[in-house]
Amino acid sequence: MTAPSRADAENLDAADPLRGFRDHFVIGAGPGDAVAYLDGNSLGRLPQATAERLEQVVRHEWGSRLIRAWDERWLSLPVEVGNLLGEAVLGAAAGQVVVADSTSVCLFKALHAAAALRPHRQVLVALDTDFPTDRYLVEAVSAQRGSTVRWVSPPSDAGVTADLLAPALDGGVAVVLLSHVDYRSAHLADMTDITRQVRDIGAVVVWDLSHSAGSVAVTLDSDGVDLAVGCTYKYLNGGPGSPAYIYVAARHHDGLQQPVPGWLGAADVFAMAPDFTPAPGIERMLSGTPSLLGLVAVEEGVRLVAEAGIGAIRAKGVALTELVVALADEWLAPLGVTVASPRDPYGRGAHLVLRHPDARGWCERLVAAGVVGDFRNPDLWRVGLSPLSTSYAEVWDAMRIARGELAALTRAAS
Amino acid sequence: MTAPSRADAENLDAADPLRGFRDHFVIGAGPGDAVAYLDGNSLGRLPQATAERLEQVVRHEWGSRLIRAWDERWLSLPVEVGNLLGEAVLGAAAGQVVVADSTSVCLFKALHAAAALRPHRQVLVALDTDFPTDRYLVEAVSAQRGSTVRWVSPPSDAGVTADLLAPALDGGVAVVLLSHVDYRSAHLADMTDITRQVRDIGAVVVWDLSHSAGSVAVTLDSDGVDLAVGCTYKYLNGGPGSPAYIYVAARHHDGLQQPVPGWLGAADVFAMAPDFTPAPGIERMLSGTPSLLGLVAVEEGVRLVAEAGIGAIRAKGVALTELVVALADEWLAPLGVTVASPRDPYGRGAHLVLRHPDARGWCERLVAAGVVGDFRNPDLWRVGLSPLSTSYAEVWDAMRIARGELAALTRAAS
Repeated sequence: MTAPSRADAENLDAADPLRGFRDHFVIGAGPGDAVAYLDGNSLGRLPQATAERLEQVVRHEWGSRLIRAWDERWLSLPVEVGNLLGEAVLGAAAGQVVVADSTSVCLFKALHAAAALRPHRQVLVALDTDFPTDRYLVEAVSAQRGSTVRWVSPPSDAGVTADLLAPALDGGVAVVLLSHVDYRSAHLADMTDITRQVRDIGAVVVWDLSHSAGSVAVTLDSDGVDLAVGCTYKYLNGGPGSPAYIYVAARHHDGLQQPVPGWLGAADVFAMAPDFTPAPGIERMLSGTPSLLGLVAVEEGVRLVAEAGIGAIRAKGVALTELVVALADEWLAPLGVTVASPRDPYGRGAHLVLRHPDARGWCERLVAAGVVGDFRNPDLWRVGLSPLSTSYAEVWDAMRIARGELAALTRAAS
Repeated sequence: MTAPSRADAENLDAADPLRGFRDHFVIGAGPGDAVAYLDGNSLGRLPQATAERLEQVVRHEWGSRLIRAWDERWLSLPVEVGNLLGEAVLGAAAGQVVVADSTSVCLFKALHAAAALRPHRQVLVALDTDFPTDRYLVEAVSAQRGSTVRWVSPPSDAGVTADLLAPALDGGVAVVLLSHVDYRSAHLADMTDITRQVRDIGAVVVWDLSHSAGSVAVTLDSDGVDLAVGCTYKYLNGGPGSPAYIYVAARHHDGLQQPVPGWLGAADVFAMAPDFTPAPGIERMLSGTPSLLGLVAVEEGVRLVAEAGIGAIRAKGVALTELVVALADEWLAPLGVTVASPRDPYGRGAHLVLRHPDARGWCERLVAAGVVGDFRNPDLWRVGLSPLSTSYAEVWDAMRIARGELAALTRAAS
């Protein structure tokens, strides 16, 4: 193999059907701006339209309409943005998604709601390699319900498969919580098969889409998924701390229970009635007043994903990760780096992890050199490749710098 | 009595030590802008500094610093803004307040944390006239813990007093949840006395400060309060859906439990350790990633309150509500309106409710005429008087219009 040249990367950009979308984002080139931003899987770039929309919402809607703006549109935004997100990104028909609260709070509600659907079963199944909040919350919710957690341990750098899960599934299982794309390895789970497997034993599945939605196809309705949650500040470009979302399949809405009943989840918000009567649909998953600025930013970010289409986004994600793998194999493998994500491009999401014993020192040098990615304990450099805003040339430049910095680090250590 | 004239109102504005603060807010005077905005107790006006700060955070910090901004300051904002809020507004020393999540979610966490401090007691006490979310949540948390709620019913238009509460307090009570200022009547509770009363029976008190903080003095530490929550989009001018806050007295931090453990509440956020080890201090009340745009808006809003000082704010709140009472007595009482808030200006917060059988129709006419307040079921017009941004002349004009609209409504109905 020969490493792709910068001209090859430039040719990929020229032929990229999504190339115009990079111009829809703020891509700084001034002092202090990143040379390459490979962390769109942690905090997506700022869409130009979002900056303008936020100014309009702040100065006109808050500044001038004030409280009247709640009636004019704000109050319906958690459902409206949820519908847009559902239809454009999640494969979910209208009326099944709301946007509000943090991912942690949404997951807390989803786990309790899911467990309440199977009140006579007492086991929650989860992966002991899942994202910390997911593990902490499944443990907490289980304790709160007097249930137990059955932990599943995938082999190192692997993700969840039906075979791995099978021994943990029996008639005592109420809920199975899984991440669609693993936050470290980028392993992409087979949502279709696993959802069927979980439902076949009469359990309820909760998918965490934080590292997948907006980068790979998600088809919640056709896969028969029960509940799902996810964050919006990664591939959906909703901005720092933007509100998360929660999906509950319509077949579960009757009698659906959630643990944080607040006034925005009531059937008639302004009746302020003596007893809590939950809204008939997905709105009952709401609690308090959602972050309005976050909601409109999510709306703008999702619009871009909807316009590009998830098919084109996924195709570019595959090609971007393949470029990183090709350059890593040629340039970095001789320096002791291994690809710790699945080699099958369709078996991973839109990020990659590269392993090196001194990944921490390497990442520090990279950030200083303007290549922004993530260090992940204990020995991983995580490279996020947000398809709408990342160019092939940017990736090529980043990998070139990564090679130079790792070589310099190795020389310094020897 | 003679009704104060507009010249009287103008003289009050001229002599107002806080008059300069109105210029720190966006006060629109264009088409569609309110003639009088009497809903700052529901959504506070937009501070000029906030509009500028948000643009800076969006375009520079998100747009350019991107993920690096989390390390540069964002990650510490829930505590930093909490400290500012605590010291300037809540009478709380540093390290006892965090800003994040909605008020509903904060209250949910506070109620569970409070009940867990008294595991052998099974009664939660609350008012059946409290804000809907407060009632719904005390009921839900009680059910989740296998406890019961003992409801206290104040007389119509009254609020909570030590005498009212006394019969409900015994050795079985774990938690007492109360609002400092009642969201309807504006009754101001005696936090000092009631906190002592609750603690004397060995129970834990949780105060909801949503309708008081930023408008009346709050002295959590010196009153010996256990826990408190509140919202920031009213008198703290944090904007639509800005994050709420939670206070836990330092003496309760050891062993403090909250029901939604997320990665931001962990001792080492980026260790991503197998087990959840909560942060040693108030940070453990955090769960997921907070709304960053909301947090910086809260910081700007609280800075204004801090600069003005709560003493001057309270004095103006008293004077503004007295102006409304004087005009209501002279102009509106003959039209069938009664003041349904405490007549003692020091026994109420910075809003007022006026009762009329056709309050709904009256409020609709008022909004159409550019006087923005709230209708509250079934017969109340709620008038909020945010001291930093409301002028006496604005209030006078609003009351003049209110008289005219009510007279016209009465004529139309007869």
